[in-house]
Amino acid sequence: MEELRLKKLQEHIKKESAWFAFITSKENVFYLTGLLANPHERLIALFVLENDYYLVIPKMEQEVVRDAGYSDELVTYSDHENVWDLIKSRLEKSTHASSKVLIEQRTVSYERVLELDKLSDSLEFIDCEPVMMSQRLIKTEVELETLQRAAAFADVGVEFGINALKTGVTELEVIAEIEYQLKKQGIREMSFQTTVLFGDHAASPHGKPGDRALQEGEFVLFDLGVVLDGYCSDITRTVAYGEVNDQAKAIYEVVLDAQNAALHAAKPGIIIGDLDLTARTVISEAGFGDYFPHRLGHGLGIDVHEAPSMSQENKDTLQLGMTFTIEPGIYVPNVAGVRIEDDVVVTEDGGVPLTIFPKTLLTIPPTS
Amino acid sequence: MEELRLKKLQEHIKKESAWFAFITSKENVFYLTGLLANPHERLIALFVLENDYYLVIPKMEQEVVRDAGYSDELVTYSDHENVWDLIKSRLEKSTHASSKVLIEQRTVSYERVLELDKLSDSLEFIDCEPVMMSQRLIKTEVELETLQRAAAFADVGVEFGINALKTGVTELEVIAEIEYQLKKQGIREMSFQTTVLFGDHAASPHGKPGDRALQEGEFVLFDLGVVLDGYCSDITRTVAYGEVNDQAKAIYEVVLDAQNAALHAAKPGIIIGDLDLTARTVISEAGFGDYFPHRLGHGLGIDVHEAPSMSQENKDTLQLGMTFTIEPGIYVPNVAGVRIEDDVVVTEDGGVPLTIFPKTLLTIPPTS
Repeated sequence: MEELRLKKLQEHIKKESAWFAFITSKENVFYLTGLLANPHERLIALFVLENDYYLVIPKMEQEVVRDAGYSDELVTYSDHENVWDLIKSRLEKSTHASSKVLIEQRTVSYERVLELDKLSDSLEFIDCEPVMMSQRLIKTEVELETLQRAAAFADVGVEFGINALKTGVTELEVIAEIEYQLKKQGIREMSFQTTVLFGDHAASPHGKPGDRALQEGEFVLFDLGVVLDGYCSDITRTVAYGEVNDQAKAIYEVVLDAQNAALHAAKPGIIIGDLDLTARTVISEAGFGDYFPHRLGHGLGIDVHEAPSMSQENKDTLQLGMTFTIEPGIYVPNVAGVRIEDDVVVTEDGGVPLTIFPKTLLTIPPTS
Repeated sequence: MEELRLKKLQEHIKKESAWFAFITSKENVFYLTGLLANPHERLIALFVLENDYYLVIPKMEQEVVRDAGYSDELVTYSDHENVWDLIKSRLEKSTHASSKVLIEQRTVSYERVLELDKLSDSLEFIDCEPVMMSQRLIKTEVELETLQRAAAFADVGVEFGINALKTGVTELEVIAEIEYQLKKQGIREMSFQTTVLFGDHAASPHGKPGDRALQEGEFVLFDLGVVLDGYCSDITRTVAYGEVNDQAKAIYEVVLDAQNAALHAAKPGIIIGDLDLTARTVISEAGFGDYFPHRLGHGLGIDVHEAPSMSQENKDTLQLGMTFTIEPGIYVPNVAGVRIEDDVVVTEDGGVPLTIFPKTLLTIPPTS
């Protein structure tokens, strides 16, 4: 799998007549090598040349990398060595007739570009993020299967959260319970900080959970996801804890309609901006246009936020095998916050949700 | 507190005759504003000019930021706006006679430097990371008090881990238990992925926890920390589950001696590289020099890995109020892995550990 991906990048290098590609984002290193590396501030970099590639890693990672089954060339360095000297001498082993270096413009640090720049005279840096993202944009069957499994754990996470609800429980306690249960099932990492918000606390789209105690008659918003075998899931559900008032219910129904409208409109060939507009129109026509301040969603894969951006401005079209979130929300300060989010894959039959936790408004009977 | 910090940066801007500083790392934004922001891929940036500053944030974060008590100027943008256009017009409100822009060279992405570069002709980018880090290097009383509280939760985390040990339990189950218990105590975030490794699994300094089941007579290595009010802790302890063999015990004692030697040598004025050497010499003289492949430790504060780097090459001296880890280790493949790590502050009386969990080899009686 990864060999094919590397080969595609090498074809691009050949086409661009570039010297090498310098890949440091953990997402692209994983995509191209299958290795999940977590180097903190130490450099882990994949150097890809037209007919060669090698991974530069801290010596202390060597064993982990070999145990993970990686059998290709490693260039290792100790903490007391200058890794850029090692890189320079390794690069000098192959001839090059180009000053073009491909980099990941969005994620590579300026400092590393300055270090690259010292490797040779007058280098020219070209962004390879678009070519990497266009590879990653369309998921293979294997990737979809992994995303599906990750999504199933997100569904289960919501269930764990609902089971933890009782009058007086705090947002942080519910989060602890969700993550504990997921970790007991073998989940090593959440795809982002789990969010559980009660009542009007959820009326801020990026509210921060705390010690707020759950009361009867308020919404509970869950936003969570897991990383499974390198792929992410991301679900949001909003449930009622006891009966909520009619205004809150009405807001819920508008969000649900908007979410379903976008989900049903998702199919190959549709313009992504139009999909955002589909949901946005439902919300605007219900009078809540000012309370939906974010885009419809985001691409999902190795990164929990990747291409495509599901925003009004995106004029690209949906294609078979793209995966992304559809997550409209309405946040009325001091009244209610509701968001409903599915992970979705584009198939020939349209958008198919990977997350399948029910979306009809659930009312959880209060317990103490 | 933050005002004083901003003022120091503004003095630096004045001294450098710079136009503005562009601060985007969440650590420095927090240090200068007190705000903990988690923007994913959206831009959150603090622009600091000699006599002015403002925070650029996504509109959807506005409420959270205001609720957090931030009352200074905000420049907000929606997902469908070009934030760089807004930045340009806001910058044009103040005159400038300089082409110097201060950036965080190590963390700012190349893409953002390219965006900055479009703001005006022939800008010159200067790294302000050293000046920020030299501010952050010396902790105030308030910071030390927070670090101390964070360290106390790390101690407690180890205790939770030990309480979860029983024959057959997996590494991941122990991790789940530690994080659950900490989260129940209000901890929102671990400072890095909690690590629990059994037996020779710990013999790789960056081993990855999994489904390995605990057996009698092996070491258990815990490496964990929390984020509390923006500050990190980081502890490592290695305990014996049942009696371990003499070779393992001998390795433990060497690591403990090395750790204590460095701890006792830590005082104001000592060269940091010499501190690494102090521990390294103990390990080398015991014949394990090849099995201590990493530096002695790292600075600790808002970032779990920050300055100073406690490595052999660091010729800087320890100063009052610096905080860092001392964490020597010995990793003998297929035999044992031991690491002992404290968080340490430099006081007039020498190095004082913030983490106080016992370091004498603990033998946990096996249970099932």
